[in-house]
Amino acid sequence: MKIKKEEALFYHNGDSPGKLEIKPKKPFKTQRDLSLAYTPGVAFPCLEIKEDPIRSYDYTIRSNLVGVVTNGTAVLGLGDIGSLASKPVMEGKALLFKRFAGIDVFDIEIDEKDPDKFCEVVKKISPTFGAINLEDIKAPECFYIEKKLKEELDIPVMHDDQHGTAIVSAAALLNAIEITGKDISQIRLVINGAGAAAIACGRLYRKLGVKNIIMLDSKGVISKKRDDLPEHKKEFATDENIRSLKEAMYGADVFIGLSKGNILSKNMVLSMNEEPIIFALANPTPEIFPEDVYSVRDDAIVATGRSDYPNQINNVIAFPFIFRGALDTRAESINDQMILSAIRGIAELAKKEVPEEIKEIYESDLRFGRDYIIPKPFDHRLLIEVPVKVAEASLKLGVARVKDFDLERYREDLKKLSYELLSSFK
Amino acid sequence: MKIKKEEALFYHNGDSPGKLEIKPKKPFKTQRDLSLAYTPGVAFPCLEIKEDPIRSYDYTIRSNLVGVVTNGTAVLGLGDIGSLASKPVMEGKALLFKRFAGIDVFDIEIDEKDPDKFCEVVKKISPTFGAINLEDIKAPECFYIEKKLKEELDIPVMHDDQHGTAIVSAAALLNAIEITGKDISQIRLVINGAGAAAIACGRLYRKLGVKNIIMLDSKGVISKKRDDLPEHKKEFATDENIRSLKEAMYGADVFIGLSKGNILSKNMVLSMNEEPIIFALANPTPEIFPEDVYSVRDDAIVATGRSDYPNQINNVIAFPFIFRGALDTRAESINDQMILSAIRGIAELAKKEVPEEIKEIYESDLRFGRDYIIPKPFDHRLLIEVPVKVAEASLKLGVARVKDFDLERYREDLKKLSYELLSSFK
Repeated sequence: MKIKKEEALFYHNGDSPGKLEIKPKKPFKTQRDLSLAYTPGVAFPCLEIKEDPIRSYDYTIRSNLVGVVTNGTAVLGLGDIGSLASKPVMEGKALLFKRFAGIDVFDIEIDEKDPDKFCEVVKKISPTFGAINLEDIKAPECFYIEKKLKEELDIPVMHDDQHGTAIVSAAALLNAIEITGKDISQIRLVINGAGAAAIACGRLYRKLGVKNIIMLDSKGVISKKRDDLPEHKKEFATDENIRSLKEAMYGADVFIGLSKGNILSKNMVLSMNEEPIIFALANPTPEIFPEDVYSVRDDAIVATGRSDYPNQINNVIAFPFIFRGALDTRAESINDQMILSAIRGIAELAKKEVPEEIKEIYESDLRFGRDYIIPKPFDHRLLIEVPVKVAEASLKLGVARVKDFDLERYREDLKKLSYELLSSFK
Repeated sequence: MKIKKEEALFYHNGDSPGKLEIKPKKPFKTQRDLSLAYTPGVAFPCLEIKEDPIRSYDYTIRSNLVGVVTNGTAVLGLGDIGSLASKPVMEGKALLFKRFAGIDVFDIEIDEKDPDKFCEVVKKISPTFGAINLEDIKAPECFYIEKKLKEELDIPVMHDDQHGTAIVSAAALLNAIEITGKDISQIRLVINGAGAAAIACGRLYRKLGVKNIIMLDSKGVISKKRDDLPEHKKEFATDENIRSLKEAMYGADVFIGLSKGNILSKNMVLSMNEEPIIFALANPTPEIFPEDVYSVRDDAIVATGRSDYPNQINNVIAFPFIFRGALDTRAESINDQMILSAIRGIAELAKKEVPEEIKEIYESDLRFGRDYIIPKPFDHRLLIEVPVKVAEASLKLGVARVKDFDLERYREDLKKLSYELLSSFK
């Protein structure tokens, strides 16, 4: 979607600067309301929390509050623009959390690039939040920061730029593999790009059973012969004696593009294995356009990051719902099992029949298949199916800190929430 | 107002935990809205801010966002209950900012008691905010923290627990002095209490011209003979050879109570100078009840912290409006001149006739005098008069960073805002 500069600036300024505001959600009109919300009434919940910290989830917005935290070092495609200049993006992220999962967000811009010092700040402000979403922090620091904060905090921490794309593409990949009848342990998978999302994709696909992964950075194939590799790239160094994308693509089953536009040629697509799976995720220009793939291979499955083609890989279909399930079970963390469970939830949803009331979101009579391997962002069923899966895993693994959690009732609550959001954003 | 525990806990839990929520304030429904608020449209305001940081006030909620920041070391009357347990109070403070001045607040609970480390955290998260309100931090650390942050940050910083009471009591004091015809440079003023608010009161009264101040802590009169005094108390050590409150009160013109209930006796009141001014601000039980003062002195002026007596000294009539004026002029700081200007604005408002539409807030036909030395919290004119005064000082002193600020138009904007708030909280 083409957006003009003046239009975007007017949207952000217009009546008033910025995109969010704080609203009271309890009655706050009379002197009595004030006495309940502030002194003297407020002393009671304070003392309850002092006695048992878990009660902070009962009496404060912590139970529904995610801190979207950045240092502005890798903002969208803009790079290191600093924490202050990243604020519009972080406010936008807050809107996505609210729109898709009813989650409140404080966006926190932290003026600190040193990973350890950055972690210190996040750790110290963490009593404010029920979970932390790390955002737009550059690689390789983002790996260290996420790992350290996961170890040191007792609330969920997730770096969406890594895991969002990994999770959604993994769900799409599982469905594409099912449709093509490939064996996941036998496929050859090429990842073009070696940034935060690419590394996270590679790691996650391995957990799903992919064995043969070739990764490329801007210098070519990441191979054991190279002596310029940082730790996180070494994980994916291959023994194969190949150097170029062209060589890597020969006989490949899957291409995952997390690089830049127009880098994959028709000839490379032609050299792929039968029923090739191509996720060309560079934005706004994909590594190859779907029509160019289909012009040479009618047996392909193609996904992009764009909303104007079938099969959009968009992390908004993952992060709001994973945090929703984690918050609602008062989880101590978001771990691998919860993520794998979310992936199953997303993948399975695409196989369900599209109900009448949301047919307008999908093309009419769209059914699970090559043009529909992943649900659309505005499918409200995501807010029901994915958090239930995440909550289920959270409970099973013992990271949940809520007692007597009833998954059936939770499903009903989520249904209600999804209709509330539909109507309030209509 | 008597509040039961169950009632307060229900208010804080009820339908959903906590008191605040985040709402989008721009359209956020269609795919196009998303493309304006998030990628790709959001890149434009980011780049504008990168080019000129001051534009963050144009394109983000920074222009209307105060960080209410605490480490939970001196929470209401509860003491050091820790940052997490203080969260209900901070959320309550956020509601007050919104209700009285339309200001958005993120409450940030920081798990750090060391003053320097605490300052580091606040400094690093400061790009998030347009101003910082320090809250419920214990003395003497609060003095150091405020001073340091004021020096190091380029946005306003104010510790409300110090200055809120000081400002409001100073406005009331100026009016009481005017009514009694006393000479401010000649009065004897006794401050009972030596906590953060007491020290701030003493410092501010001196700036207003008070020369003779006697301060007492729990051990009695703070005198030069004592060898147990920390720096901030030494400022107020007297040469006089007195030790008790009883001795201090003899011949005093003004009593400021920031201590505990029922500590001032009728005999002490009897020993005061003519037309004594008594601000008994301990809550909920004042140092002496007004009826007890009047039973022995019908020439007195009495104020308390309570809403059920005339002349309530409540810092909610200062902080929302001072921050309003500071934010709207994009001030770099809140300095003495802005505070003195706010005090004049508050004091002068009490002298204006009460307009018909808010007569219900005041007793009928209340006029400036012994029972009306300070405006009431729900007087919406505060939101017009005080920010204008603050903005005026901010512009004059060159701490404002907004160009072509029109004070007359500002007054009209504030009028509109005050009616909006009146109707949205009705």
